[in-house]
Amino acid sequence: MLVGVLGGGQLGRMLGLAGVAMGMRFRFLDPSPDAPAKDVGELVVGNFDDPAALDLFSAGLDVATFEFENVPSSAVRHVAQRVTIHPNADALDVAQDRASEKRYFEQAGLAVHPWATVDDLSSLEAGIKTVGPPAVLKTRRGGYDGKGQAVIRATTDTGAQAGSLCHAWESIGKRPAIVEAMVPFTRELSIIAARGRDGSFAAYPLVENAHAKGILRTSMAPAIGVSPAIERSAREHCHTLMEKLNYVGVLAVEFFEHDGRLLANEMAPRVHNTGHWTIEGAVTSQFENHLRAVAGLPVGSCAPRGTSVMHNIIGGVPDKAAVLRVPGAHLHLYGKEPREARKIGHVTVCGDDANAVSFASSEIGSLVAAAARG
Amino acid sequence: MLVGVLGGGQLGRMLGLAGVAMGMRFRFLDPSPDAPAKDVGELVVGNFDDPAALDLFSAGLDVATFEFENVPSSAVRHVAQRVTIHPNADALDVAQDRASEKRYFEQAGLAVHPWATVDDLSSLEAGIKTVGPPAVLKTRRGGYDGKGQAVIRATTDTGAQAGSLCHAWESIGKRPAIVEAMVPFTRELSIIAARGRDGSFAAYPLVENAHAKGILRTSMAPAIGVSPAIERSAREHCHTLMEKLNYVGVLAVEFFEHDGRLLANEMAPRVHNTGHWTIEGAVTSQFENHLRAVAGLPVGSCAPRGTSVMHNIIGGVPDKAAVLRVPGAHLHLYGKEPREARKIGHVTVCGDDANAVSFASSEIGSLVAAAARG
Repeated sequence: MLVGVLGGGQLGRMLGLAGVAMGMRFRFLDPSPDAPAKDVGELVVGNFDDPAALDLFSAGLDVATFEFENVPSSAVRHVAQRVTIHPNADALDVAQDRASEKRYFEQAGLAVHPWATVDDLSSLEAGIKTVGPPAVLKTRRGGYDGKGQAVIRATTDTGAQAGSLCHAWESIGKRPAIVEAMVPFTRELSIIAARGRDGSFAAYPLVENAHAKGILRTSMAPAIGVSPAIERSAREHCHTLMEKLNYVGVLAVEFFEHDGRLLANEMAPRVHNTGHWTIEGAVTSQFENHLRAVAGLPVGSCAPRGTSVMHNIIGGVPDKAAVLRVPGAHLHLYGKEPREARKIGHVTVCGDDANAVSFASSEIGSLVAAAARG
Repeated sequence: MLVGVLGGGQLGRMLGLAGVAMGMRFRFLDPSPDAPAKDVGELVVGNFDDPAALDLFSAGLDVATFEFENVPSSAVRHVAQRVTIHPNADALDVAQDRASEKRYFEQAGLAVHPWATVDDLSSLEAGIKTVGPPAVLKTRRGGYDGKGQAVIRATTDTGAQAGSLCHAWESIGKRPAIVEAMVPFTRELSIIAARGRDGSFAAYPLVENAHAKGILRTSMAPAIGVSPAIERSAREHCHTLMEKLNYVGVLAVEFFEHDGRLLANEMAPRVHNTGHWTIEGAVTSQFENHLRAVAGLPVGSCAPRGTSVMHNIIGGVPDKAAVLRVPGAHLHLYGKEPREARKIGHVTVCGDDANAVSFASSEIGSLVAAAARG
C-alpha cells in the first residue's frame, strides 16, 4: 500500500516510521528538499498550491492524508479528485479558521471562551466591549506556536503602547481575527481520538500540557486528577465533532480546564505534538491509529501503558548519552538542523511506577532545558 | 550520524526504523535491489565480496554493523580498515563455523551436546560412534532455518536410505560438518543481550521458541517456569561469551532445556528473530539497543513490559483487519513478496494480563496459520 502524505515534517516522518513497520510505503509532498520525512519514503518537492506537483504526488497512491494543518484545503480537494484522502477538506476548513472552529465547537455543544470576530479596528473595539479585557486577539488563519496573537489589556485605548487595541491590531498585521476573553484557567488539557472509515472510535486519555513562550514543552499522560465526568465529557464531545464532520483519522482537541469544566480552545485535524507520548506510552500510537483509520483498517486500543511524560527538544540537542542513561527515556530526533525555538525532537519517559517516571522526567527536563534555545 | 549496515533484509529494516526514530540515517549494502531495508535508508546494491562495493558502502559512514550472519568476515575486515564496525570479525568467524562455535561455548563454560567434527565419511563413522545415534549431521558453514542438516539413525549403515550415514553425508553435499547427538529436550530457549563499547551489559529474559519444519514460528517472552538459577546461568554465560570476544552490539544464544539444565545450541552475532517481541514488549527494543551499543551510546533497559508472544508470518499475509482487531496485536510486514516458507512479517501480541495475551495469541496463531505457506 502506497500512502501519500501532504507535508513532510516530523509528523510525516513519524507517520512513516509507524506505517513502514506495517508494510506501507510512503510518498510525501513538501516545499523543502530537506523535509524530515524524506528518510522514510519518497519525497516530491513542490508547493501545495501547485496543481502539477499535486498531480505528481497523487499518481498511483492507494490513499492520502496530510500532516500539516496549513495545507490549503483546495490542495486536499484537488487530491480528493484523484485518490481517497482523509481527513476530508471540510474538517481542514473548519480547523484553519478560528471563527469557524469556535462556531463549530458551539454547535457541537462544547463550551468556549467568550469571543467575537474582528475585521477592523472598530469591530475590535466592539468585540472587546463584549468579551472584556484582558483578551487575546488571534488571526483567524495561519497562527501556530503563539504566532499571530496579541494580548489586549485596555478597553478603548487606541494608543501605540503594548496591550492597546491599536498595537494589537497592528502587531497581528491587521488580518481577519477573533478576539477572545482571557479566562483564568488551571491548566491545559488535550484529547486525541481516532475514528475509522467504519465509524469506529477510540480516544486516548486526556493529557496535561505545559507551554513556554507559546511553544509546547511537556505533555503528561494520563493527566492527573481528571474527574470521570470531565474525561467522559471530553471524549463524547470529541466523538460528536468527528461524527458531524464524518471525520476519518486522528483529531486533537485542546481544552482549558477551570473550576471543574473544560473550555475548548482549538482542534487540529491531524496527529499532534501532545500525542507523541503514545509511541511508547499507549497500546497503539497515534501515528499507527491515524494510518489504520485512513487505510480502512480497524483502529487500535488507545489505552495507556503506565505513565508517560513527553518533553519537546527545542532549539538544541541535549547530551544523547545522558538522556539515554535516564531509566525509561526514549529519544526521538527528527533530522532537523537545530535553530532557535525550533522543535527538533522529543524525549518520552515512560513506566509503570509514576514516582520513578516523575523523577526521570525531571532529569530529562534539566537536560532538555540546558540544550534549549528559544 | 550515518550508520552502515551490511545486509538489507528485515533485520536491517527494523534496525533502520529504530535508528531513524533516534535521528540516525542509514546506508545498506545488499545484493538485491529489492532489499526490504531500502524503505528506511540508502541502498547500495552489490556483493559482500566485491571490494569496490564495500568501499562505496564505507565512504563517509560514522559507524557500521551487519545484520546478516553469512556476510564473509573478510568483508567485515575490509570495512573495519575504513570505519569502526561492530560486532568484530572474530565474533563472526566463531559464529559462522559450528565447530568453532562449539569449541568457543566449551571454553566459555557452556554445556553443549556431545559432538564431533566430520570431514569425510570415515570421520562421520568415527564421530557417530562417539556421540551415538540418533544424531544430526550439520554443515559447519552456511546452514540456517534447518537447511544443511540431516538426521542419522543408524550407526555404521552406509546404505542410501534416509537416516543412513551415507545418505546424510550426500544430502548435506559432503561438506565439512559436525555430527551432534540428538539429546531429548523439553524446549528451546534463547537469550539476547547487548554489550556497549564501554563494556556495559544488559540481557533480555529467556524466551521460549517453537519451530516447525525448521523455521521459528513463535517466541514467548518471558519464558514461563524458568528457574532463577537457569536465568542467571544463561545471562552469565552470555556475558562471558561477549567479554571474551570483546563483543559490542546485540548477541543471541539459543539453548535446549532438559532436566533443569541448558545446552548451548548456537549463537547469532546480530539482532535475532527471537527478539522481535522486544519492539513492543521490552523497555528498549533489541534493534535500538544494538544501535546504541554500536554507536557508543549507553545500552537501555531490557526489562519486559508485560507478556509477549511473537508469531512469524510465513509464506502468506494473514487478513490484516482481522489481525488488527485482536487486542494487543501489533502487525509487522517487511515489504517482501510472499513465497513459500519465506518470513515476510510477524505479529506480536503484548499485554499485562498473561491470560488475555494467551487468548489473543491463539487467535493470531489461527490467522497466521490460515495464511501460511511452508
